[in-house]
Amino acid sequence: MDEVAAINVIERPKLKDPILIESLPGIGLVGKIAGDHMRDELKMVKFAELYSPFLPPQVTIQPDGTVRLPSMEFSYLKGKKDIVLLTGDFQGITPESQYRLSEKTLEFAKDIGVKKVYTLGGLETGSITSKPKVYGAATSKKLIEEHKGSGIVFKEGGAIFGASGLLLGIGMGQGVEAVCLMGETHGQIIDAKSAEAVLKVLAKVLDIEIGMAALSEKSKETERQMNQIRKMIAEQTRFEKSEEKFMSETPTYIR
Amino acid sequence: MDEVAAINVIERPKLKDPILIESLPGIGLVGKIAGDHMRDELKMVKFAELYSPFLPPQVTIQPDGTVRLPSMEFSYLKGKKDIVLLTGDFQGITPESQYRLSEKTLEFAKDIGVKKVYTLGGLETGSITSKPKVYGAATSKKLIEEHKGSGIVFKEGGAIFGASGLLLGIGMGQGVEAVCLMGETHGQIIDAKSAEAVLKVLAKVLDIEIGMAALSEKSKETERQMNQIRKMIAEQTRFEKSEEKFMSETPTYIR
Amino acid sequence: MDEVAAINVIERPKLKDPILIESLPGIGLVGKIAGDHMRDELKMVKFAELYSPFLPPQVTIQPDGTVRLPSMEFSYLKGKKDIVLLTGDFQGITPESQYRLSEKTLEFAKDIGVKKVYTLGGLETGSITSKPKVYGAATSKKLIEEHKGSGIVFKEGGAIFGASGLLLGIGMGQGVEAVCLMGETHGQIIDAKSAEAVLKVLAKVLDIEIGMAALSEKSKETERQMNQIRKMIAEQTRFEKSEEKFMSETPTYIR
Amino acid sequence: MDEVAAINVIERPKLKDPILIESLPGIGLVGKIAGDHMRDELKMVKFAELYSPFLPPQVTIQPDGTVRLPSMEFSYLKGKKDIVLLTGDFQGITPESQYRLSEKTLEFAKDIGVKKVYTLGGLETGSITSKPKVYGAATSKKLIEEHKGSGIVFKEGGAIFGASGLLLGIGMGQGVEAVCLMGETHGQIIDAKSAEAVLKVLAKVLDIEIGMAALSEKSKETERQMNQIRKMIAEQTRFEKSEEKFMSETPTYIR
Repeated sequence: MDEVAAINVIERPKLKDPILIESLPGIGLVGKIAGDHMRDELKMVKFAELYSPFLPPQVTIQPDGTVRLPSMEFSYLKGKKDIVLLTGDFQGITPESQYRLSEKTLEFAKDIGVKKVYTLGGLETGSITSKPKVYGAATSKKLIEEHKGSGIVFKEGGAIFGASGLLLGIGMGQGVEAVCLMGETHGQIIDAKSAEAVLKVLAKVLDIEIGMAALSEKSKETERQMNQIRKMIAEQTRFEKSEEKFMSETPTYIR
Repeated sequence: MDEVAAINVIERPKLKDPILIESLPGIGLVGKIAGDHMRDELKMVKFAELYSPFLPPQVTIQPDGTVRLPSMEFSYLKGKKDIVLLTGDFQGITPESQYRLSEKTLEFAKDIGVKKVYTLGGLETGSITSKPKVYGAATSKKLIEEHKGSGIVFKEGGAIFGASGLLLGIGMGQGVEAVCLMGETHGQIIDAKSAEAVLKVLAKVLDIEIGMAALSEKSKETERQMNQIRKMIAEQTRFEKSEEKFMSETPTYIR
Repeated sequence: MDEVAAINVIERPKLKDPILIESLPGIGLVGKIAGDHMRDELKMVKFAELYSPFLPPQVTIQPDGTVRLPSMEFSYLKGKKDIVLLTGDFQGITPESQYRLSEKTLEFAKDIGVKKVYTLGGLETGSITSKPKVYGAATSKKLIEEHKGSGIVFKEGGAIFGASGLLLGIGMGQGVEAVCLMGETHGQIIDAKSAEAVLKVLAKVLDIEIGMAALSEKSKETERQMNQIRKMIAEQTRFEKSEEKFMSETPTYIR
Repeated sequence: MDEVAAINVIERPKLKDPILIESLPGIGLVGKIAGDHMRDELKMVKFAELYSPFLPPQVTIQPDGTVRLPSMEFSYLKGKKDIVLLTGDFQGITPESQYRLSEKTLEFAKDIGVKKVYTLGGLETGSITSKPKVYGAATSKKLIEEHKGSGIVFKEGGAIFGASGLLLGIGMGQGVEAVCLMGETHGQIIDAKSAEAVLKVLAKVLDIEIGMAALSEKSKETERQMNQIRKMIAEQTRFEKSEEKFMSETPTYIR
């Protein structure tokens, strides 16, 4: 494997100036929920997988008993505007690796013709709102102008962490224009409502239709899953701690 | 040395489609106890050693006063099915290095003809049971089907950390099929009973005999060693802390 | 990108034996305030930018809604003595990366003809003084002699952390002579007064004029900004924490 | 610079099968005090310096106001047996880097003809003794036999951390034989008495004379320095903390 990541290309679809949408997990999982819903709702087709030693060193067991190595996935949709979506369960496990993975993502994106990127995320406000706003930031003033009227509130100041920020920052220097859409969110809850607000803006901007019925349903399901998750996290944390414990005991034990 | 590890090949045994068993330390030391016992009981022959800057920067002093650098070891057994066993005292010290070492292990394994892998580990339950179950996960549904009737409870959901998971996850993408066997265990004790349960399933699957008498004995010995170990760990922790302390004092002291 | 950093050269000014001034952030932000003021006051011209995966993986949103990737910037001023100034918002995020970035800086500096360097920083005293002293350290006794009469108190003992120290230490071995100027400062406040003291010494040494009126003004503004900053930091810390939280929840949630 | 370290060779002395003594800082600073004293007492000649991005990113200011980059130094002494001594203020800052630096040290040592190594360190006991024992560990039983009668108590079990252990562990695989000498020490004090015990054994083994008068004196001086050091450490810790504090504030402050 390459130093940073290996990209397994399953199919090379013919895409015309595809627009890349990034939806890796972040604050409130807003970006991830939006991206996963979009992929399912629009029946987007996975055409490439990215594996990296900078994703967590583990596998997840799926409901059928088979395992899955953490990865990022590229899916596409052909339409009025061709779209490529980047989804995944994790970002890089170190600051440097987040940088390297964003460079790698852009390298691949440019290779398939991407010149424009939208990154999806959340903006923490600490309060709950019934009508979450969608904030934005962009790589140029021209781009901000172009998005006037799309319902995006362009933000003054602050910072964007991880891939949602880096794809803009690194892209700028490589002639890739990009906009980050951030749904207003509490910060301590998984926020499907904020994801919906982001998707509505994105749908308008891309001039596509994305059904939201399933997302509302997912919002309720998410609520239920949360209780299960909390239980499993507690279990896994104990798991990892005891592993560390034994690791440190091992050198003495096994001579 | 290579960036990741150096493998010192002592002997190149002629093996026919050998099956790799991984038994590096993890939860409850279940995998490690099982592997070490299997190696001793079956008088398996060490034929290669792996050294790496990603194993702890130390040596252990052996009973005769000579030292040993942390390593992973490959042993083999020729039989109805040829077997290669990976044992060791440590896993990689960083998340990335666990990934790199699993890649290296697979590279070497494939080089000696391995196409199938079993990884051994523990599954924490937080409770003590007299008849520990053996849970499983695999790289394909076909493989799960093949193991029906072997007493493995294929699990739904959860995660497998370290080499026991990564050899499956990385192997899948390289045409290597693999099954992880996890013995039910409390999580906070070194569990020879769980190791025995895992070994019994493994013996059945591999169609070999593994005497368990010594393992039961080892279980008692482990109990006794634990008290010594706790004392030594406390000592070593003080050792390391004082080293760190002096490290940080040094720049001022030595001008 | 290079393993360590990419330097984007905007312009290749013709400079005669330029002197490099380093003013990256450190104790009391003394060096950074001094450097940023000098750049603005002398209308120095940016001619190169350094980007690196060892700077934080984020972008900052500017007042106009566009983003900026963390970078270090090289600016120049032609005069009796040609000057090159290194400014930036961050130092490397790991100890090793601070070393690598200082090596990279020196490589570029020598490439544009730099043979002499001044690094600017603060020296923590824990107390507030109305007339902060300027302490110094240098790469040779000859250099210390040459600076007698400039008001620098050459220090005995202690250590200089980060780029302000490394440019001296690494430079020495490469034939680059360097002096570190450290303004006496409390340590827990952003200290424009100490920055002024450092700049006055630097101006004398370089035989240039640097107006200080705006700096005094900046000192007051800094006071006001501090309250806003504290609020924003608290917000961002929550932001990052919740991101970490969701990251660790994700593997279980998304199977 | 090389990925790991740069070695600046000042002189290439003609040495006949030189024996390498390692005395980098560790527990009780026993090894470092012993090595530094030996170098001074025997007027050993520095002939090479090792610099590395894995040593702390800082410089220390010397009494004359000039700075020094952290390094390791190789000195030699020609005699009945030629000796090369490795001294330094630090070990590598990460576990991996300790491994890499030990590999680098051995590479250089072998290049100048070294086939035998003694590493010096402390063994923590938690109690104070008037006649500290000298414990040992070696790369072979033959070597242990050869050192019978030299007053070394060869140890059973335990671990040796850092360069003092790694030079044995890595050396073994490269045909370099090595012995580690560990002076019994409390662990929480800088122990010149233990260093003396180690040096006496080393002098006997190497068949050289090392005057100890200055070392006893140094022991008292060390006592006095300790009070100063504690004060300076406290100061530096505040220094670093405030630096970190400002680092994290910076992204918000400088937009």
